[in-house]
Amino acid sequence: MTGASAPKETDAEQVETANTAFYEALERGDFDAVSGLWLEDGEYHEDAEISCVHPGWPVLTGRGEVLRSYALIMANTEYIQFFLTDVHIGVAGDTALVTCTENILSGGPAPEAGEELGPLVGQLVVATNVFRRTSEGWKLWSHHASPVLAESDDSESDETPS
Amino acid sequence: MTGASAPKETDAEQVETANTAFYEALERGDFDAVSGLWLEDGEYHEDAEISCVHPGWPVLTGRGEVLRSYALIMANTEYIQFFLTDVHIGVAGDTALVTCTENILSGGPAPEAGEELGPLVGQLVVATNVFRRTSEGWKLWSHHASPVLAESDDSESDETPS
Repeated sequence: MTGASAPKETDAEQVETANTAFYEALERGDFDAVSGLWLEDGEYHEDAEISCVHPGWPVLTGRGEVLRSYALIMANTEYIQFFLTDVHIGVAGDTALVTCTENILSGGPAPEAGEELGPLVGQLVVATNVFRRTSEGWKLWSHHASPVLAESDDSESDETPS
Repeated sequence: MTGASAPKETDAEQVETANTAFYEALERGDFDAVSGLWLEDGEYHEDAEISCVHPGWPVLTGRGEVLRSYALIMANTEYIQFFLTDVHIGVAGDTALVTCTENILSGGPAPEAGEELGPLVGQLVVATNVFRRTSEGWKLWSHHASPVLAESDDSESDETPS
């Protein structure tokens, strides 16, 4: 189980790296990096477009709509930090599914001159991210993020077999 | 391009049939049918669990949590109808991604004796559904649904190349 050479990254480890890189690129406001983490049109084998749902938004479909939305969000976000929790990664063939909780702290541009930043806002969001394996690594096919509006007691309940 | 025999359904057509069957089973309150449309644990090639996000909820992971949530929702829903619009289907290998708008009309149990139904409520929800190809047809791997909270003008904007 152990070897002298560096251990090869598992699929799940590679997917987690890509998922982390996506959120880090958003934190840096690095549009080119975000753009590079989404599937290119030429990387599809079949007729399949990328899709993206921001919290509370309708579905955006295709690179044009999706990347424009990130440009818009970045223009209106002075500061954003993601604290990821509950990261679950599943891999089946050339597709990976990641679910995670995005604990977001963000601030917009300063509302008044002389201030550095708008007020910081905390948000509890859950995301489902679908990745495809490509020759250049795992790339996003779909991102769906949504606000958690209600408390659930599922984590507290016993797994009582019925 | 045409033949005497019945035309074979394309992958996308099969996926749309499975997606429609999922919402019809929810409308009927048919727990067994809903359960049968989700991947079984034995149908995974790799370590990948099903996941589900209902509008405003946290992530539910695994058949136990996911199916319990449907039993709970069905127990509290007297009437539910889904009008699907904007259905986009993409297929890559053995995975399919469906996005759609769920225009939901639902009613809970009657709050007072003698009434047939609680008040009907309309909801605008968007969903991303991920299906896997199995020997028994396309089965749900992930369902993520979220409320549309803000209006977007993306459908009105011109696709101006920049």
